[in-house]
Amino acid sequence: MIKTDILIIGAGPTGLFTVFEAGLLKLKTHLIDALPQPGGQCSEIYPKKPIYDIPAFPEILAGDLVSNLMEQIKPFEPGFTLGERAETIEKLEDNTFVVTTNKGTKHHAPVVAIAGGLGSFEPRKPPISNIADYEDKGINYFIKDPEIYRDKKVIIAGGGDSALDWAIFLADVASEVSLVHRRNEFRGALDSVEKVSELADLGKINLITNAEIVGLTGEDQLEKVVIRHKDEARGEEFKDVDAFIPLFGLSPKLGPMANWGLEIEKNAIKVDNSYDYQTNIPGIYAIGDVNTYKGKLKLILSGFHEAAIMCQSAYQRINPGKKYVLKYTTVGGVEGFDGTKKEAKKEVVQSIGV
Amino acid sequence: MIKTDILIIGAGPTGLFTVFEAGLLKLKTHLIDALPQPGGQCSEIYPKKPIYDIPAFPEILAGDLVSNLMEQIKPFEPGFTLGERAETIEKLEDNTFVVTTNKGTKHHAPVVAIAGGLGSFEPRKPPISNIADYEDKGINYFIKDPEIYRDKKVIIAGGGDSALDWAIFLADVASEVSLVHRRNEFRGALDSVEKVSELADLGKINLITNAEIVGLTGEDQLEKVVIRHKDEARGEEFKDVDAFIPLFGLSPKLGPMANWGLEIEKNAIKVDNSYDYQTNIPGIYAIGDVNTYKGKLKLILSGFHEAAIMCQSAYQRINPGKKYVLKYTTVGGVEGFDGTKKEAKKEVVQSIGV
Repeated sequence: MIKTDILIIGAGPTGLFTVFEAGLLKLKTHLIDALPQPGGQCSEIYPKKPIYDIPAFPEILAGDLVSNLMEQIKPFEPGFTLGERAETIEKLEDNTFVVTTNKGTKHHAPVVAIAGGLGSFEPRKPPISNIADYEDKGINYFIKDPEIYRDKKVIIAGGGDSALDWAIFLADVASEVSLVHRRNEFRGALDSVEKVSELADLGKINLITNAEIVGLTGEDQLEKVVIRHKDEARGEEFKDVDAFIPLFGLSPKLGPMANWGLEIEKNAIKVDNSYDYQTNIPGIYAIGDVNTYKGKLKLILSGFHEAAIMCQSAYQRINPGKKYVLKYTTVGGVEGFDGTKKEAKKEVVQSIGV
Repeated sequence: MIKTDILIIGAGPTGLFTVFEAGLLKLKTHLIDALPQPGGQCSEIYPKKPIYDIPAFPEILAGDLVSNLMEQIKPFEPGFTLGERAETIEKLEDNTFVVTTNKGTKHHAPVVAIAGGLGSFEPRKPPISNIADYEDKGINYFIKDPEIYRDKKVIIAGGGDSALDWAIFLADVASEVSLVHRRNEFRGALDSVEKVSELADLGKINLITNAEIVGLTGEDQLEKVVIRHKDEARGEEFKDVDAFIPLFGLSPKLGPMANWGLEIEKNAIKVDNSYDYQTNIPGIYAIGDVNTYKGKLKLILSGFHEAAIMCQSAYQRINPGKKYVLKYTTVGGVEGFDGTKKEAKKEVVQSIGV
């Protein structure tokens, strides 16, 4: 059982900054995220895209925003449960919570902060009737460790950057890489498209366009896929494969949290924005894009504010009756749980002999 | 008469960021500040101090925070009325406002956003009964243009960084610089203290410690100050001066805004935090450290959020019935009023010949 003060569900920018605000109040934090790395959408979907509305950054790449936040929170040593989705929540008699992931990892905390963004990002799956039978048995929607494809026959489907980039990468790893796309046009960075074209000319990527995968066969494990060509003269063909990786993007889903008894409005969690961003269940807060209230703006900078306010309320819940006086970091510095201390140079009181 | 969409009172970080959020909504802005430069406290009081709790900046100097914000808002061409204090407000029949400064400059806008921080910073004045008689007649509390002291006899009072730094600077400008401090210890950067000590040894600064200025004389203009020494044997002495500059720091005052009919609580302006940070007077908003509500935190990051929310409400007031759909800067880019356009590189749709 992992124990912490504030259990944060979602490791996007809002969840990460919560670690900092909690840390200033000497509260420990642990984050759960379904994605395999911190940063949420910023890391997974658009790490190389510039954001222009983070205050005091005229321009910052989403990936750099995440790196900066990771550096800022480092002194507060947050724990992470990554690649697992928060599945169930149980309220104990002492009003604390146990959150269990889809892989069975249990977390115990007096306060839960849901910073789940637009929800957990689920892969978009091709509409093949028996696809679920082969998930993790030849079919993966994410590539966590490319080495598992070494010397294998791999087929990738998709027409975006992920499909292009992984086809390029796996060309040097797999024994055979096929890239299947239902159009002849790819939507991705120019150099990726050119590189795929080049590798196809060299015979290192087997490019199959104007085609779709429409069937799957195999005993316990995926063995063959059925490729249907738009060109009716070519019709359908079976192809031997060890692995099929559909990369059709991600779509956000509120997911299991929708069944936690929280008040939901328009796929978001209602909170009390007149005070502390608490949900209808005391002790559970919702901050950032996952929450809703009158006038809500789904902006990263709003998540930061909500995190700061929410941590003050969490402090009261965890330390009832104890008064916390806000100290400015410019005056009091930042004392990490790792023993580090950052602070402004003190003014010197110096005597002049006259 | 200066005309704008949102008149922002206070050019600290919150006021500056309001320009950006308003600009995204195509609203024009103009800022009034009593200080001679933008940035508020960050520029005037602690430009060289690090701040640790601005999201995604593990550390940033207050002065750099202001520079970054100035760069971020540049495309939206804000107007500035600096070195003037917002003195009176008048609501016209059409529900727009006219704000007049202490120097008589008039500003007209349908929306007023008070981002006044802790109020306007007023210099702390030494308790000399007739001091007001010599203000701007030999006495200044700020140094705007050091050249006016060239070849003059100047006396500075104070024991902090400002007093030390200006004594050092004016030693090369004025014909005579005296630095009077009631103790023998100075509270400032070590190298400033050492430099003053060195210049005193060279006879370039006349250092008078354990002493205070207790009297002022002169016809129309300041002519002499009375210095009282702690050492009773030395008693009081008259000293000829052209200029007396007391540098005892600044203290915040809500100032004339306290008489605008706004609901005030604990020296701050009450606002509706459950929606749009509007005050009890429709069309006047208060954001950042100047406002108060249940759970308020006087953090710069909260001012940023309040600015974003407030601008949406201002947009409705200025464009009644018009619906604004929030566009993400990552998707839609930022279009400046100066003709500049920042945007993410578009994905390329590229055909592969196969």
